[in-house]
Amino acid sequence: MELNWNNLDTLASYRELQAMQPVDLAKEMSGENGAARVAKYSVPMAEGMAYNFAAKAVDDDVLETLKKLADEAQLAEKFEYLYNGAVVNTGEKRHVLHQLTRGQLGSDVVVDGVNKREFYVKQQERIAAFAEKVHSGEIANGAGERFTTVVQIGIGGSDLGPRAMYLALEDWAKKNNTLKMKAQFISNVDPDDATAVLENIDVAHSLFILVSKSGTTLETLTNQSFIINALKREGLDPAKHMIAVTSETSPLAKSDSYLDAFFMDDFIGGRYSSTSAVGGAVLSLAFGPEVFADFLAGAAEEDKLATNRNLMENPEMLDALIGVYERNVLGYPATAVLPYSQALSRFPAHLQQLDMESNGKSVNRFGEPVKYSTGPVIFGEPGTNGQHSFYQLLHQGTDIVPLQFVGFKKSQFGNDVTIEDSTSQQKLCANVAAQIVAFACGKQDENRNKNFAGGRPSSIITGEQLTPKSLGALLSHFENKVMFQGFVWNINSFDQEGVQLGKKLAKHVLAHETDGALRAYSDLLGI
Amino acid sequence: MELNWNNLDTLASYRELQAMQPVDLAKEMSGENGAARVAKYSVPMAEGMAYNFAAKAVDDDVLETLKKLADEAQLAEKFEYLYNGAVVNTGEKRHVLHQLTRGQLGSDVVVDGVNKREFYVKQQERIAAFAEKVHSGEIANGAGERFTTVVQIGIGGSDLGPRAMYLALEDWAKKNNTLKMKAQFISNVDPDDATAVLENIDVAHSLFILVSKSGTTLETLTNQSFIINALKREGLDPAKHMIAVTSETSPLAKSDSYLDAFFMDDFIGGRYSSTSAVGGAVLSLAFGPEVFADFLAGAAEEDKLATNRNLMENPEMLDALIGVYERNVLGYPATAVLPYSQALSRFPAHLQQLDMESNGKSVNRFGEPVKYSTGPVIFGEPGTNGQHSFYQLLHQGTDIVPLQFVGFKKSQFGNDVTIEDSTSQQKLCANVAAQIVAFACGKQDENRNKNFAGGRPSSIITGEQLTPKSLGALLSHFENKVMFQGFVWNINSFDQEGVQLGKKLAKHVLAHETDGALRAYSDLLGI
Repeated sequence: MELNWNNLDTLASYRELQAMQPVDLAKEMSGENGAARVAKYSVPMAEGMAYNFAAKAVDDDVLETLKKLADEAQLAEKFEYLYNGAVVNTGEKRHVLHQLTRGQLGSDVVVDGVNKREFYVKQQERIAAFAEKVHSGEIANGAGERFTTVVQIGIGGSDLGPRAMYLALEDWAKKNNTLKMKAQFISNVDPDDATAVLENIDVAHSLFILVSKSGTTLETLTNQSFIINALKREGLDPAKHMIAVTSETSPLAKSDSYLDAFFMDDFIGGRYSSTSAVGGAVLSLAFGPEVFADFLAGAAEEDKLATNRNLMENPEMLDALIGVYERNVLGYPATAVLPYSQALSRFPAHLQQLDMESNGKSVNRFGEPVKYSTGPVIFGEPGTNGQHSFYQLLHQGTDIVPLQFVGFKKSQFGNDVTIEDSTSQQKLCANVAAQIVAFACGKQDENRNKNFAGGRPSSIITGEQLTPKSLGALLSHFENKVMFQGFVWNINSFDQEGVQLGKKLAKHVLAHETDGALRAYSDLLGI
Repeated sequence: MELNWNNLDTLASYRELQAMQPVDLAKEMSGENGAARVAKYSVPMAEGMAYNFAAKAVDDDVLETLKKLADEAQLAEKFEYLYNGAVVNTGEKRHVLHQLTRGQLGSDVVVDGVNKREFYVKQQERIAAFAEKVHSGEIANGAGERFTTVVQIGIGGSDLGPRAMYLALEDWAKKNNTLKMKAQFISNVDPDDATAVLENIDVAHSLFILVSKSGTTLETLTNQSFIINALKREGLDPAKHMIAVTSETSPLAKSDSYLDAFFMDDFIGGRYSSTSAVGGAVLSLAFGPEVFADFLAGAAEEDKLATNRNLMENPEMLDALIGVYERNVLGYPATAVLPYSQALSRFPAHLQQLDMESNGKSVNRFGEPVKYSTGPVIFGEPGTNGQHSFYQLLHQGTDIVPLQFVGFKKSQFGNDVTIEDSTSQQKLCANVAAQIVAFACGKQDENRNKNFAGGRPSSIITGEQLTPKSLGALLSHFENKVMFQGFVWNINSFDQEGVQLGKKLAKHVLAHETDGALRAYSDLLGI
């Protein structure tokens, strides 16, 4: 099949969507019709999870038109094109292969004679063997003592995803007696970041992972120096305390400065690298290789669902298209991610990068400006915390912000108390159920200050419990959602040229090659 | 002077603003004109800080009109009205008195025979005396051993502000040998939150602060049970490990279940309570009362600047008006808060509540719907981390997001390394300078994928170092900015009726009094 790469505003189904009467969500969700929608508007996900979009401002007619849009934009075909190894990252002329770290969706992808699936699996096996040696004490510190802490040094995709995944599973691992090492993270070039982490750890029993694809990331190399200094101050050999995760061609790859090096490559973007060696090293060391393997299995299972050509059986594609409808037809500028799970406290920060860095673009894949909105602002905090913070605006503000809830029936620890006839976990779940209905239906009140207009759309992903598998599925869901939205907008979701100019100007400042405003700001900040 | 309370869209100066030609920011900021703007468009703040708005899309003509708007909306007069004790929170019929926790701006405010300034000072003195006894060991655990950890149990304003302030000063306190106790925070009703914190602390040497103004906050009372259970499990007497921060009329106020109780009242909203006993207890225990007093002094100094009737000498009012111009005239839907300071990692989360809960309203103070946008979405992460995350969208996305930078010349620890001829702190500062110019000026490139349109506005608050005083000033800046914006929008920034409906429906779910969608979602979540 010949692929078209047309802009959204040239598609007939998009014009059809724009001409449709908006759905009255408050009305649709009231009474027994609301209950019927909850039963009907649900798509199964991996691991017994489900994507429920009953509280989205859609009906069968809108869904029918979204199906047409999926077909017209060839979303399934483009995903197939991607996972069969096409150079979808047109700007950087690269394949997009993160899905190969957790399975084989299509045909083998061979680059420069290397089967990439085999390459990624080999790195996982090398990491697993290394982690097991660390856990058994075969690899130990200079005094022959076991490492107890693992510290990831990386920024952006080498930090946000792995950190969010670690926090998501730390308590689960404690409960299941598989927390092998505590993990810490250093990311910021602010010297106080490295200093604070070093103050809190036992350096002599810490293993450091230096993560930089290019091996040249300024923040990461700078933070490495803090580590080296700290180790030397304690009379320790840095090369016995550090490993690298990098590309095979990087200066870090074959250095004597590291115990070992594990590889990723240019076909996995930082924000898509949680399932590669970037997440694999720290998560395998922290939780054991089996836990990381389960995480990959969950992601692989969800990836498969994302290949489904039937929109109503493809939760990623459906989430993507509803998001496009809200962004481009209904005109909503932001999306809030609201996991009712404290373990997912940094998951919104990871999605913020994943989504905004992928789809915050103004030109299509051919470099031509697009005349429609692309990626929205993404933000969020866990519930119920957010309820006591910014939900006021979400309920009664002048802008409508679509909401993406996540909720699990069971907590991770299983430890609970009963107050007023319900457990905390029940209260947590009751709150998310209540919020969805409050947002959708609102409530009329004569006192306008207490009036809720309703009509504020949300979806929820539900699951039994946040486990390695369900976390993998959740991650894959959003990676694929973002990819499908990029296809609809006809943009390249896999480069990030927008981060270059600032980096370049920062180098000029440090070299004192400045004039005008740049010099003035440098003076202001005492550089 | 008689105050008017008119909607923004009835003001002549607002219509004048709307008719003005937008400023070409990229042009204004280029060459030596840019440097001149940096020098000129700066307003001093407390503690040697400054609010620099050179990279905002304003010029002398726009500023002149903003001055007219400030006058026409009577911003200085309304602040005076507020701090002299008027019932500005019209919805709940309450005074707004958080500024009295840190100084006396106007006349005495006496409520029911109580001088409120004296009341707040008395609570601070009681907290200081208590904290000193804890630090000296006079107040100790059952075994007569010193408390080493303080754990705040609260949600929303009882969590976000105090937590952000604690994190902002933890490293500073370490460096200055004034970290008396480590602080931890429990907020979420998710049982995994309390369990995880309890797993990480030494319960026998922990002092718990239960913070709830009403004494009835569901999350907080539930989490208290976890603490009581944990203490009892170790054979400890909960009443010897807990204090309360609450209102004098709350059920917690005179209970034998606490070592002591410290008071706030209905005239301080949760999101404005960091300088009250809500922040005072945990910060005084963690850092000592002197550090908390310095924090208050910084806030008081900035409060005074906010009373200035000259817009160009009032950084809070100016920041507020530029924000209104961006929101209502230029039509930008969100604002990013970007502190180049790892210590301010949770400051954006606090501002998210402060701003969105205060100004996310659709009706004016008389309960009449307004026909213009009010509070924007607020989000942010520290730099340089954000640069490697969502800055792509900020630079090249289809929406323009105004930016609020914060930067300090010196780090808190003063520990640093030199790589490629610059320290990490210099790199940090170089990056924020570079970003401001990159956003404002952009850079043309024939490859449209590498093209930066520029014209993306930002301001920066600069300072010497993040200290208790500068942190207090920073907090006051944003509290007063939010208040002024509320005045311009003619809304009540001090209530939060939008959080009530969800709470009410959650109670129905827990009582199994549900039908329709609410029952369906409850079933889905296994309640």
